[in-house]
Amino acid sequence: MDEKERFEKGLAVRRAVLGDAHVDRSLAARDSFTTEFQDLITRYAWGEIWTRPGLDRKTRSFLVLAMTASLGRWEEFRLHCRASFSNGVTTDDIKEVCLQIAVYAGVPAANTAVKEAKEVFAELGIKT
Amino acid sequence: MDEKERFEKGLAVRRAVLGDAHVDRSLAARDSFTTEFQDLITRYAWGEIWTRPGLDRKTRSFLVLAMTASLGRWEEFRLHCRASFSNGVTTDDIKEVCLQIAVYAGVPAANTAVKEAKEVFAELGIKT
Amino acid sequence: MDEKERFEKGLAVRRAVLGDAHVDRSLAARDSFTTEFQDLITRYAWGEIWTRPGLDRKTRSFLVLAMTASLGRWEEFRLHCRASFSNGVTTDDIKEVCLQIAVYAGVPAANTAVKEAKEVFAELGIKT
Amino acid sequence: MDEKERFEKGLAVRRAVLGDAHVDRSLAARDSFTTEFQDLITRYAWGEIWTRPGLDRKTRSFLVLAMTASLGRWEEFRLHCRASFSNGVTTDDIKEVCLQIAVYAGVPAANTAVKEAKEVFAELGIKT
Amino acid sequence: MDEKERFEKGLAVRRAVLGDAHVDRSLAARDSFTTEFQDLITRYAWGEIWTRPGLDRKTRSFLVLAMTASLGRWEEFRLHCRASFSNGVTTDDIKEVCLQIAVYAGVPAANTAVKEAKEVFAELGIKT
Amino acid sequence: MDEKERFEKGLAVRRAVLGDAHVDRSLAARDSFTTEFQDLITRYAWGEIWTRPGLDRKTRSFLVLAMTASLGRWEEFRLHCRASFSNGVTTDDIKEVCLQIAVYAGVPAANTAVKEAKEVFAELGIKT
Repeated sequence: MDEKERFEKGLAVRRAVLGDAHVDRSLAARDSFTTEFQDLITRYAWGEIWTRPGLDRKTRSFLVLAMTASLGRWEEFRLHCRASFSNGVTTDDIKEVCLQIAVYAGVPAANTAVKEAKEVFAELGIKT
Repeated sequence: MDEKERFEKGLAVRRAVLGDAHVDRSLAARDSFTTEFQDLITRYAWGEIWTRPGLDRKTRSFLVLAMTASLGRWEEFRLHCRASFSNGVTTDDIKEVCLQIAVYAGVPAANTAVKEAKEVFAELGIKT
Repeated sequence: MDEKERFEKGLAVRRAVLGDAHVDRSLAARDSFTTEFQDLITRYAWGEIWTRPGLDRKTRSFLVLAMTASLGRWEEFRLHCRASFSNGVTTDDIKEVCLQIAVYAGVPAANTAVKEAKEVFAELGIKT
Repeated sequence: MDEKERFEKGLAVRRAVLGDAHVDRSLAARDSFTTEFQDLITRYAWGEIWTRPGLDRKTRSFLVLAMTASLGRWEEFRLHCRASFSNGVTTDDIKEVCLQIAVYAGVPAANTAVKEAKEVFAELGIKT
Repeated sequence: MDEKERFEKGLAVRRAVLGDAHVDRSLAARDSFTTEFQDLITRYAWGEIWTRPGLDRKTRSFLVLAMTASLGRWEEFRLHCRASFSNGVTTDDIKEVCLQIAVYAGVPAANTAVKEAKEVFAELGIKT
Repeated sequence: MDEKERFEKGLAVRRAVLGDAHVDRSLAARDSFTTEFQDLITRYAWGEIWTRPGLDRKTRSFLVLAMTASLGRWEEFRLHCRASFSNGVTTDDIKEVCLQIAVYAGVPAANTAVKEAKEVFAELGIKT
């Protein structure tokens, strides 16, 4: 595949998952510092991985939430917490993920995950 | 629920996921240093989390593989890689998890995950 | 032990360590997303571990500060920094913990630990 | 070498790299909680490591940016991002470091590194 | 660029850095589980990042050693320790990296880095 | 203090904690790659931190076990598990540390800690 085509494929799924508003903002903010990085992650994370048919997007959301909480990458956790609703994840699913995080990555990681998730829910107007 | 009942519930799912041979070995090796720890993880990790109906066991296997690889907890990764087959995970699923790990936890974590998974497949006589 | 009794035992020590104000706030904020999580950590972290006679609470505070700083779980570090005073920890003790963190988890972790601790001291009106 | 001399050597390079304003602020803020810590890191990090002739300061900046991003030590990342300009690092260099972080520590670490770097650039009035 | 061309560019630099023997072994071991992963890392890690002119390969080796030691990715640390000699890194350079790791990622990470590096030197017949 | 004196002070406590056999082996193995590193850690980790009167050695052992397990620095965990007996730590103390690790750093970290500790006990001929 040509890399331009890969970029377009990646951009489409990135838009579907993260939403047009977020992606437009990222693209508009591109400058000499971030253009290559934006290009790389669009092709690499989105064009290569998220487009693969081997796992559904809901499962990919679960994987990303689990990894970002474990590693304390909270900005990405928030981003994908918000995005996961586009992939069919529910607040009950996220509750289960947080409980599993408590046991496998420790209670402090889960505490922060719960707090961050609740803030995302509030931003989205989701009641729990 | 009484904690003895919780232990029994946990032990049943632990046996179903990790296999009788592994669990019998763990229980037989209990001594004054490990008995309370074995009891705790059987009730909490297995009795509380793995018995919850909110996510199927296959998804829980995915979450554990993603978290243990991210945190470099390789013994637990191997254990759950092996166990995941009881939960319906396939080698193709594990391939997808490894690819997602590469992007979200870094290529070195994925490299080791691939190597460890292949060793588990070899032990189980699984051809890929 | 019945799990309700475990919860009550955990709640008592949780109140003793974190203070009634914090625990009341956590309990009051429970909803369908957090109730099971609050229940789990009250029984598991507090009811099982913090109630054990094997180590005094001061030592348990030290362990938690060391682990949360190492893993960058700063919200939990702050919470336990504040709580550690109820367990007899002094600002001099926390200074020693920060120095040990510098060598074993790296100077950047210690830098943040020092900064977070000082903010907690300021909130509590503790002069150093 | 006497440790006072080590402190002075460390302070000189710390001032050269982090700037007088930052170091004066740190020293002025010393109290019974932080004096020994400030003394230790000035001798240990700065007096021992940053004064060594074996690697130029630019390379040491690269190493610190890579390690702090990997471990999520973002305050230290910002500090050294800002300081790296004194060592001859350019915004293009930091872009390369962020791209390498994406592959070796994962895309979420790189995303935060890019964001933090851009905030530092903005504070310094650097256009990219 | 077409992705086949990217793969070839990546393979060339991967061979130059890791050596033909290692790369031939990796390619020969490809199967249905690893082919896509090998393809992905050859194009991204090697074809995208290591081929960029923005940093010389010696600096990229430094970055990878620092990140893999910080994250405890020891297999990748060994691989790149060995490979770094092709990029002009010397044992004295690696000594400096280990000293910097001690301060920024903690003494235990540096202890293991020193031990792993010495084992690589011994395998390569390098005296220190 | 002169740094030679600091080294001697550090060496004395290092010998007291890790044992003469281990320290003699480390010193005998010094070469151009490791001499400066050995010197640095003897003066800083041992001469500066472990000699401080602010915390007893038993508590410092606890802190190191907690940090090294959290960060997955298993070689250092083993070293300090073995050494902790010189500081008055008992197998029951280590059991408590492992239980606390399970909750704060996750069950997989505790699983490996338990296994590593048991191997150290076996090497030392300690029955549990």
